[in-house]
Amino acid sequence: MAKQHVFKFGDGKADGDASMKVLLGGKGANLAEMSNLGVPVPAGFTISTDVCKDYYKNDGNYEEDVVKQVKDGVKHIEKTMGANFGDTENPLLVSVRSGAPASMPGMMDTVLNLGLNDDTVKGIVKKTDNERFAWDSYRRFVQMYGDVVMGLKPASKEEEDPFEVIIEKVKKERGVELDTELTADDLKNLVKLFKDEIKKDTGQEFPTDPWEQLWGSINAVFDSWNNPRALKYRKLNNIPADWGTAVNVQSMVYGNMGENCATGVAFTRDPATGEKIFYGEYLVNAQGEDVVAGIRTPQPIRKDRKTEESQVALEELMPDAYKELVDIYQKLETHYKDMQDIEFTIQNGRLWMLQTRNGKRTAAAAVRIAVEMVDENLIDKETAIMRVEPKHLDQLLHPMFDPQAEKKMIAKGLPASPGAATGRIVFHADDAEEWVDNGEQVILVRIETSPEDIGGMNVAKGILTARGGMTSHAAVVARGMGKCCVAGCGALSINYKEKTMTVEGTAYKEGDWISLDGSEGEVIEGKVPTIDPELSGNFGRLMEWADEVRQLKVRTNADTPKDATVARNFGAEGIGLCRTEHMFFEGDRITAVREMILAKDEEGRRKALEKLLPYQREDFYGILKAMKDLPVTIRTLDPPLHEFLPHDEASQKEMARNLGVSVEEVKNSVEALNEFNPMLGHRGCRLGISYPEITEMQARAIMEAACQLTKEGIKVYPEIMIPLVGTKAELADQKRVVKEVAENVQKEMDVQVDYLVGTMIEIPRAALTADEVAEEAEFFSFGTNDLTQMTFGFSRDDAGKFLKDYDEKGILPEDPFQTLDQTGVGQLVEMGVEKGRTTQPDLKIGICGEHGGDPESVGFCHRVGMNYVSCSPYRVPIARLAAAQESVKEKNK
Amino acid sequence: MAKQHVFKFGDGKADGDASMKVLLGGKGANLAEMSNLGVPVPAGFTISTDVCKDYYKNDGNYEEDVVKQVKDGVKHIEKTMGANFGDTENPLLVSVRSGAPASMPGMMDTVLNLGLNDDTVKGIVKKTDNERFAWDSYRRFVQMYGDVVMGLKPASKEEEDPFEVIIEKVKKERGVELDTELTADDLKNLVKLFKDEIKKDTGQEFPTDPWEQLWGSINAVFDSWNNPRALKYRKLNNIPADWGTAVNVQSMVYGNMGENCATGVAFTRDPATGEKIFYGEYLVNAQGEDVVAGIRTPQPIRKDRKTEESQVALEELMPDAYKELVDIYQKLETHYKDMQDIEFTIQNGRLWMLQTRNGKRTAAAAVRIAVEMVDENLIDKETAIMRVEPKHLDQLLHPMFDPQAEKKMIAKGLPASPGAATGRIVFHADDAEEWVDNGEQVILVRIETSPEDIGGMNVAKGILTARGGMTSHAAVVARGMGKCCVAGCGALSINYKEKTMTVEGTAYKEGDWISLDGSEGEVIEGKVPTIDPELSGNFGRLMEWADEVRQLKVRTNADTPKDATVARNFGAEGIGLCRTEHMFFEGDRITAVREMILAKDEEGRRKALEKLLPYQREDFYGILKAMKDLPVTIRTLDPPLHEFLPHDEASQKEMARNLGVSVEEVKNSVEALNEFNPMLGHRGCRLGISYPEITEMQARAIMEAACQLTKEGIKVYPEIMIPLVGTKAELADQKRVVKEVAENVQKEMDVQVDYLVGTMIEIPRAALTADEVAEEAEFFSFGTNDLTQMTFGFSRDDAGKFLKDYDEKGILPEDPFQTLDQTGVGQLVEMGVEKGRTTQPDLKIGICGEHGGDPESVGFCHRVGMNYVSCSPYRVPIARLAAAQESVKEKNK
Repeated sequence: MAKQHVFKFGDGKADGDASMKVLLGGKGANLAEMSNLGVPVPAGFTISTDVCKDYYKNDGNYEEDVVKQVKDGVKHIEKTMGANFGDTENPLLVSVRSGAPASMPGMMDTVLNLGLNDDTVKGIVKKTDNERFAWDSYRRFVQMYGDVVMGLKPASKEEEDPFEVIIEKVKKERGVELDTELTADDLKNLVKLFKDEIKKDTGQEFPTDPWEQLWGSINAVFDSWNNPRALKYRKLNNIPADWGTAVNVQSMVYGNMGENCATGVAFTRDPATGEKIFYGEYLVNAQGEDVVAGIRTPQPIRKDRKTEESQVALEELMPDAYKELVDIYQKLETHYKDMQDIEFTIQNGRLWMLQTRNGKRTAAAAVRIAVEMVDENLIDKETAIMRVEPKHLDQLLHPMFDPQAEKKMIAKGLPASPGAATGRIVFHADDAEEWVDNGEQVILVRIETSPEDIGGMNVAKGILTARGGMTSHAAVVARGMGKCCVAGCGALSINYKEKTMTVEGTAYKEGDWISLDGSEGEVIEGKVPTIDPELSGNFGRLMEWADEVRQLKVRTNADTPKDATVARNFGAEGIGLCRTEHMFFEGDRITAVREMILAKDEEGRRKALEKLLPYQREDFYGILKAMKDLPVTIRTLDPPLHEFLPHDEASQKEMARNLGVSVEEVKNSVEALNEFNPMLGHRGCRLGISYPEITEMQARAIMEAACQLTKEGIKVYPEIMIPLVGTKAELADQKRVVKEVAENVQKEMDVQVDYLVGTMIEIPRAALTADEVAEEAEFFSFGTNDLTQMTFGFSRDDAGKFLKDYDEKGILPEDPFQTLDQTGVGQLVEMGVEKGRTTQPDLKIGICGEHGGDPESVGFCHRVGMNYVSCSPYRVPIARLAAAQESVKEKNK
Repeated sequence: MAKQHVFKFGDGKADGDASMKVLLGGKGANLAEMSNLGVPVPAGFTISTDVCKDYYKNDGNYEEDVVKQVKDGVKHIEKTMGANFGDTENPLLVSVRSGAPASMPGMMDTVLNLGLNDDTVKGIVKKTDNERFAWDSYRRFVQMYGDVVMGLKPASKEEEDPFEVIIEKVKKERGVELDTELTADDLKNLVKLFKDEIKKDTGQEFPTDPWEQLWGSINAVFDSWNNPRALKYRKLNNIPADWGTAVNVQSMVYGNMGENCATGVAFTRDPATGEKIFYGEYLVNAQGEDVVAGIRTPQPIRKDRKTEESQVALEELMPDAYKELVDIYQKLETHYKDMQDIEFTIQNGRLWMLQTRNGKRTAAAAVRIAVEMVDENLIDKETAIMRVEPKHLDQLLHPMFDPQAEKKMIAKGLPASPGAATGRIVFHADDAEEWVDNGEQVILVRIETSPEDIGGMNVAKGILTARGGMTSHAAVVARGMGKCCVAGCGALSINYKEKTMTVEGTAYKEGDWISLDGSEGEVIEGKVPTIDPELSGNFGRLMEWADEVRQLKVRTNADTPKDATVARNFGAEGIGLCRTEHMFFEGDRITAVREMILAKDEEGRRKALEKLLPYQREDFYGILKAMKDLPVTIRTLDPPLHEFLPHDEASQKEMARNLGVSVEEVKNSVEALNEFNPMLGHRGCRLGISYPEITEMQARAIMEAACQLTKEGIKVYPEIMIPLVGTKAELADQKRVVKEVAENVQKEMDVQVDYLVGTMIEIPRAALTADEVAEEAEFFSFGTNDLTQMTFGFSRDDAGKFLKDYDEKGILPEDPFQTLDQTGVGQLVEMGVEKGRTTQPDLKIGICGEHGGDPESVGFCHRVGMNYVSCSPYRVPIARLAAAQESVKEKNK
């Protein structure tokens, strides 16, 4: 039997179902599933993603079976819909759409109204008794096919769309302003003019054979899998290139045949807040693309969602269709057990479902929906945990505008994606990327956004559009990104050329500061102060469930009592990295530090270090107290000493004056400490080995603070961590120094403290020889920042330049400083854990690089068997959720 | 049965033999072996190295068995030698000496004449009828024991020996000049004064009980295993600290009982040239230490070795003893099948052998002895290969003084260790180390050297002494180090205080340049030009044998046709690393390079690169031609671009003038290219990925040269190597660029060339993902310099500072930049080889870091299965020999 390439659906049954997403794409699988559920779906068929792979393998050719099965598929549509492809009396029109296993909204191509030509158009006129509709459909088809299949596009971003130029010309000639004012004859004329332009520009005749049209469109959809937009989107969303897309060929149904027609999109719950309320928008007498494109501002589906008197809800206008829609959405949500994003069309009063899929949502909505669905007994707690993307929690954790702050609101739009954002205005996606590269934070302001703007949207702090609804491109994409967005803010008048945005007479230029409140839809002048988010309610419940299931502990990187407290509130179970070097810069300390650096001998250094001791003791006292009952990992001095010296002449003079030495002496010291590659220089434990008195002072400060707190009845667990260890001998040397001091301090203060001495694993050699290092270490903490630098041979400070080229050429799939490179660096981490545990089966192991807050990397840390991750305070809940998800995945494996 | 701790020897039999070196130490094993051979050896016993280990483990205590067995040992000596320990009539005197498994001459302590006290000394007087000898022996014993066991030493280097102070005082009082002029009574007085001084200084009585003396001395020898000299020597010679030393307790025999007594050392062949001639020195009426210490200049053993009329050879003075000695040395050499270094004493005309061991020798001697012993059928070729230390070949490979050059010889001494050396005079070992640290090359000039001078001798280019013979400390140590040495140059008058050396009225100050010819014993004023060494004869034969047995190929690192030719003459089998960056600095090229760097766009860069193309083509033409029929690995541009820009103002101005741009532009470019950590910055393949046109130009230059040579009938094998690859994608990108150009050039020139495109493995990640990288690579070459930098996190340019501290604290056993760190970096190398061959079982793999010329590292490369090593031209023979030795070792495993 021939392999099945084409999967039919419609008429209450289907060849496929929802489980076949990989083969049929998300859209195809769901159309089949809906069809199986008895939901009214226009008949059609799906060409599988395997055909896409073959298409690329065979240089754009198809196997015979595919061609045969497509023919059968068309016959199935003809039979089900009672119309015939290419028939001049009763012609069947179809849509050709992409549909990948993962959602890639708007990234690939679509052709609608396919099957029209100068003959079949007459059949449509007859069938609909609507000459204008027929010719408008034909006009739209030629325009779309000419663009997507035949490649007639604007040559550059500055140029206008050639079809729109013709439309404008005809409108001018006819003295009308709106497209809708054009008559059937005008549209007929447009069809001719479009075809002429296509012939002139591409040298090819517009195809009249519907079958040629069909294959041209299928090819175009497969080709669009690799267009630049799709490539960029896949990269941003980690979608593998070899998945391929399916193609859905489906009977057209029309929301634009007249006033008893409509089209709309809806969510089974509010995608912004998660509230359990049916939620959607529609347009009367329109095609589906009109809603998504945001060109006309749509009307609400439900009466109670009207924001203006003049609006007419679908519930009021077409109550029967509305009722059927409500039945269907409830059926779908109950079936899929998740919030659905649905598309529908009403043709001459009859409801057709075009699509259902799990709806994108804000983090707040994801949390609320997940928790409420547990309460509704739709899903269990572990499913709820899996429903929230940990990265998106970021939205909930970052500060919101202070409600007490004075805000000058200048306009209000739709609250399309919540959160608060402040930045400088830019008007082009490219500019946004450039400004951000230069260290600016920007708000991208557009009349409307399109898939070409993805890059700019990704780097902007927030997005503001003048047109489009809650389901417009800008809104959908921003929510997906977890980015603040205010959409459809009609008060704005945007001039791209002059780079200005005018609101009631006031002009804001490129570079001016504005703020957006995505939860309220407010546009605010200037910068606005922020406050901390709420962490209770649904969020708190979800995190509780996460904590119940997860095995990995989550600590925080914090250098101050304040940070430690913030992190504790976020659920941190200790400090995984307390850096001590920042403390050296404060107040008078830097003078003592510099005195130490300039000292000629150990005695001089000890004198200066004695001045630092009380400060450091106070630092550690505060931090240990803030983290009472929990472990606190304190790293001994790490950066090269030259970082503490001034490098400009004026500061050097001041330093000389402060220390009572000559400027020459200061300069000589700066010179002597200068290094070619400071990252690989005299830092970390190398300092402590050269100058054990520094380690001694720090160990003393830590232990004196710990002993004092213990005496006060506060339980503390200091873990002293030696950085940049590459050999067992280095750790042994520093451990000896620390232990000696620690034992002395405990004797002096007559109290015992539970303390550990361990090591960073951040030098490749430490990971390679972890079995030896573990003979000395009481714990390991992977410093994956430095480990990544050395394993790749990348200096983080310098790599920006060439990593940009790497990104453009697709040489590195991800920034290894953000997501742990599991293939390379990960091997060293795994080796380090395994070898360390060979020596000490119960060795406590964690990670304190920035990867500790990256969900994918957290998953990796769980899988290799670490005890904890440590990350910045705001990332603690993200890590908690990511760790829980990994535990759930492991259970379900 | 109790474990045997003590091994007896003497009287023609022994408990041990030569195979028991690890347990008995070299000296003990050889005393046993000699005893077994029937050679006359004073009776004694050896306390094993295991006892030393236990001694350290048990805090200086002994097990009961040890104490018992030592007692039995003393009984054995008493019985064999017919004297009794502590007996007042017929007292037995013994020596207590160290003896480690590896030779550590003079590094540990010795006590002689043990068993003397105020009672037993009378027995000696009676027995020898020589009161002066008896009291002199007693005096020497108290002095030695007081120093070694009781610790009465000069407090610092500036202070004089407290015993010598007393001797000087007594001599002054008695109005005599020489020690020998002191009478028995004077010596008796000295014994008393010495004991008083010891009591005063240490608070302890000098022990009178011989058993207490014996245990004190055994303890002292074990303790001396860890004295600073011994630690330093072990480190220099890679002797593990846990081996421990044995202790040899042996009956004293005396070369200083009178004029029919003598003591001497000899080599069975000439240790400087390897000539098969018995060779040695002796002193009449002296103790063995007197010969080695170089205080009196000894006489030759053989008549035909007299250099002055006044000398008296042993052959003449004591012909019977001489004849017996000749018989014995022949027996020993035939038995050990290696050149022996022997010590003997003649007591009242009777010959006693005190020691035999394989003799240290110069590289030239090692080669000659090995080759001649093969000719004599004493050993086979593979044994000969194993007899030469590859590192020492260096001596033979480095230039010698040009015989045509004008040389102003200012003095002549003994040709103690061959080679030529030029450097600035320093008079103290510490100064030598300091000067060399500051980048100077020095000649260490001493009256005589002592074990304390090891460090300075090691860094000096050559060593010159005023006193001491061919077997003096300076001579023995210098030969061991393969370092040029002129010894016993009596014409020199050295003044340490004024730091001058005067020769016939001319004074040479510290810092003046002199030259030494260690093969001729010449001291020459100023610097002398050198010529290349001879590589034929014995050397050539040995290398032929090495080539027959070795499997590892040896290539060279060479950037010029001249270097390539030198290396071919040294036996290089191709070029393993041709760096292209040096070529960019020559002549006009740098201007074109800078023009490229300053170019605003690709077009500008291409214009500048076109100017470089003909130069590069010419470079490659020359190198490929010089290496015809052999592979040549050419690395594409590696260093960061800023290395090609001037960093001082004047040069920047000149560059601006040359290129017709503003100085500002030049400065901006320098600024823009500045990096925090250039080692980890924009270099290697990262440059080629950002600017593919650079790679294209280089690939074109290589392929045009290769095609041209092929047309001329010359067979060439270019191997184009991409540096700093960390991911498969990087290599794939650059390989594509190279292949495209290579195919085009071959088409243009209508000729085919065998070429490969491969990669350096120098980034840890490349080794970790070598299976992936091997999907693109046509060969691997390990760049272990950078791999070591990144695996350790050491910047080679900066590590000097802290590696010194590491060295002092014993944290790193070896400089990982000189000898490959097999424990850490080696894991990555092994992984890289294994993973690479998983993908491509026949992948050609080599090494081109500087480790390719280090014998230990070469052995490692063989063991992990590399195809070749590549090293600097002068190291090629070293690598060939090291590779052969590894093959032999593998065969014998």
